[in-house]
Amino acid sequence: MTYCLGIINRFGIVMGADSRTNAGVDYISAYRKLFDFSLAGERAIVICSSGNLSITQGVITQLKRDLHHGEPRNLYNLPSMYDIAHYIGEKSREIQDSDRPWLERNNIDYQCSFLLGGQVQGENAQLYLIYPQGNFIQATKETPFLQIGETKYGKPILDRTIKYDTPLDAMAKCALLSIDSTMKSNISVGPPINLIMYEMDTLVVRHKLELRLGDPYLAKMRKLWEDHVRSAFDAMPNLEWEPEESQSNDDILID
Amino acid sequence: MTYCLGIINRFGIVMGADSRTNAGVDYISAYRKLFDFSLAGERAIVICSSGNLSITQGVITQLKRDLHHGEPRNLYNLPSMYDIAHYIGEKSREIQDSDRPWLERNNIDYQCSFLLGGQVQGENAQLYLIYPQGNFIQATKETPFLQIGETKYGKPILDRTIKYDTPLDAMAKCALLSIDSTMKSNISVGPPINLIMYEMDTLVVRHKLELRLGDPYLAKMRKLWEDHVRSAFDAMPNLEWEPEESQSNDDILID
Repeated sequence: MTYCLGIINRFGIVMGADSRTNAGVDYISAYRKLFDFSLAGERAIVICSSGNLSITQGVITQLKRDLHHGEPRNLYNLPSMYDIAHYIGEKSREIQDSDRPWLERNNIDYQCSFLLGGQVQGENAQLYLIYPQGNFIQATKETPFLQIGETKYGKPILDRTIKYDTPLDAMAKCALLSIDSTMKSNISVGPPINLIMYEMDTLVVRHKLELRLGDPYLAKMRKLWEDHVRSAFDAMPNLEWEPEESQSNDDILID
Repeated sequence: MTYCLGIINRFGIVMGADSRTNAGVDYISAYRKLFDFSLAGERAIVICSSGNLSITQGVITQLKRDLHHGEPRNLYNLPSMYDIAHYIGEKSREIQDSDRPWLERNNIDYQCSFLLGGQVQGENAQLYLIYPQGNFIQATKETPFLQIGETKYGKPILDRTIKYDTPLDAMAKCALLSIDSTMKSNISVGPPINLIMYEMDTLVVRHKLELRLGDPYLAKMRKLWEDHVRSAFDAMPNLEWEPEESQSNDDILID
């Protein structure tokens, strides 16, 4: 399993991914799932991937090849983020098409998803989720984050904190906590964690981070978070239980 | 969907459930999913249910009937919590068996799960999860909580806070927050919320609570929680991004 997320708001974009890949629970390894394809000063392009590793690696390799061979459609000459999302979706469809009969024969899941975040000169920054079917959606002001892979454990913290005017630094910490929560609850999501922070209109990804297993920042963050959770419980008013005399045990009556 | 959870530790048991039932997204209604069958002073028995409503209601009705008809095996004369878990599993299997052919024909999910928590005089308090197949597991000191239904959104907060020596009051607040997080992230989980708190060795459930939509406690809790989350982010040390001069964009190189 994998967990990747992207958040966009008025200040920029934060994207993060874990690195764990597993084939069952008895074969676990680490692969990067966050890739920075930016062309400094012209366009910032960051891609995260989840799903069948042979397919996602295939797509990433194809993107690089098209760049290096100067193909007419590549990450550097497509005119907009929308076109880039469309192009990645097409690549994903192509590779899935060619492998599907062989994988299906053995009930191997060949689906994969991508997050695409960045900014092309002349446009606003944008964030997309490209589905296994190659179609895609864009994050908006109302729903400023997108997730792929093991999305559920890390969603509550995002639902509660991410707003259109959340500062970038807080967004990055929140992304990290969202990934950490997922790692704690699902063993198939694990370090190293890759994180990028993109400041609006800079057209270059200046902030990158890789946190390895046992990184002191991760440990400190986890401890501090758990302390705050406990103090939140202490601060919460006591529950107002129903007065005992008003309780009648209706539950055992036959309706 | 539904979300129910039970937590047990040295101080007692907390159990909670939402009340939302849906058949698709276009038919949503509210049904109790937490039932107190305690016999004050002799045994505390609380049951939560999730899954196909016709089956879970059928099981609960059968449990009541066996009680009222004084059947040789019922919730009040079975000698242990283990036997009660086994008995509920059997009831669930029976009703599933009788309805399965009809439900399967229309691809209707007939599975259901139960949580059983409580204490029979002479035993320690216990907490069980009864699977759709009728088999069951028991919560232990190492894993003091069990969940059924939409379990993922509410798990991180439990993973981070519930210990064998967490005070009962904090456990109850944590359970409520776990349900609230699930409600916020999944619209198919919703109020009223039912919560019980059982103090070890009292053999009676003294603390019950029903929180309806718009309950001021829920709103206050949510606000306070979100404030604490934000202050946790402020308190977290700033991320140490990689120095820009050490960054080289390897990602675009062909391997």
